[in-house]
Amino acid sequence: MDFDLDRSIDVLGRTPSTLTALLKGLAEPWITGIEGPDTFSPFDVVGHLIDGEETDWIPRARVILARGPTPQFEPYDRFRHRARNRHRSLASLLDEFASLRVDNLDLVRSWRLTPADLDLPGLHPSLGPVTLRQLLAAWVVHDLGHIAQAVRVMAKQYTGEVGPWVPYLPVLTDHPAPRS
Amino acid sequence: MDFDLDRSIDVLGRTPSTLTALLKGLAEPWITGIEGPDTFSPFDVVGHLIDGEETDWIPRARVILARGPTPQFEPYDRFRHRARNRHRSLASLLDEFASLRVDNLDLVRSWRLTPADLDLPGLHPSLGPVTLRQLLAAWVVHDLGHIAQAVRVMAKQYTGEVGPWVPYLPVLTDHPAPRS
Repeated sequence: MDFDLDRSIDVLGRTPSTLTALLKGLAEPWITGIEGPDTFSPFDVVGHLIDGEETDWIPRARVILARGPTPQFEPYDRFRHRARNRHRSLASLLDEFASLRVDNLDLVRSWRLTPADLDLPGLHPSLGPVTLRQLLAAWVVHDLGHIAQAVRVMAKQYTGEVGPWVPYLPVLTDHPAPRS
Repeated sequence: MDFDLDRSIDVLGRTPSTLTALLKGLAEPWITGIEGPDTFSPFDVVGHLIDGEETDWIPRARVILARGPTPQFEPYDRFRHRARNRHRSLASLLDEFASLRVDNLDLVRSWRLTPADLDLPGLHPSLGPVTLRQLLAAWVVHDLGHIAQAVRVMAKQYTGEVGPWVPYLPVLTDHPAPRS
């Protein structure tokens, strides 16, 4: 599928409600379980998505839209949420994420981006030249990847409980070496 | 985490609302995209979950609870949904799935299963001896695996749009050889 701004915004707008339906009010072991050292729990995933709203996607889009001579992005801290959310509840993080996302998507809509705007360049600190279109597509895929991660990590909490079903449930053996 | 009936029912009860938040009303390319030959689209996933409600989990639990001499399960048709749902809308399938799931979880609650009930044996046509506890745990993991699949397949529709971000978005390279 080619990039489509409205279809991208539609998916981005659903992430808070999808995660709320999946996670809000669940018992602790489902939301704090992990799949290996230094991997994200579902709680961490929501915190990481909040970090993205505050420090990643929109700030980087603004760098691009400023049309400066060197549209270089700031590096992004993947573990900012750990200290930030130590004393927070998952419910309050889900509400905060939903509110940030609504505001950020309203902002994107207010830019009335043209195809020429979407071609504007940015400079990623390690990946090099990118376009605004690629940044927005990566935002969509990043959301979906982290929903998949939260769901996979939940599934793995029952790896020892399904008996001989393991080979029929591939989600249990995805990411044997954690990579996100 | 050890198997817990109430916590399992909690997760199972969320799958319809999670998939509805993720999918209902999305543009066609998001819901009909696949990740390779003979793989499920998000539309197929919902149909497959309906097949599970009608022909898999509850019928197999009933075989176990009947306590017969040979508690053998019927084989399960993973592609029943293809013919069944050819002329259906995704919205109507999501509503049907939600209704079937509510009824099936009400039924499970009505059984007031004891730890001894959860130990009762069944005979899987290819996996051999299992217990009711393992069947119910597999139901939970099966749901989560297919939510992860729907989300992953959506993400892959943008593989060509994220430019150099591919290595930072592992969901795009999960299941390079499709296996569910």
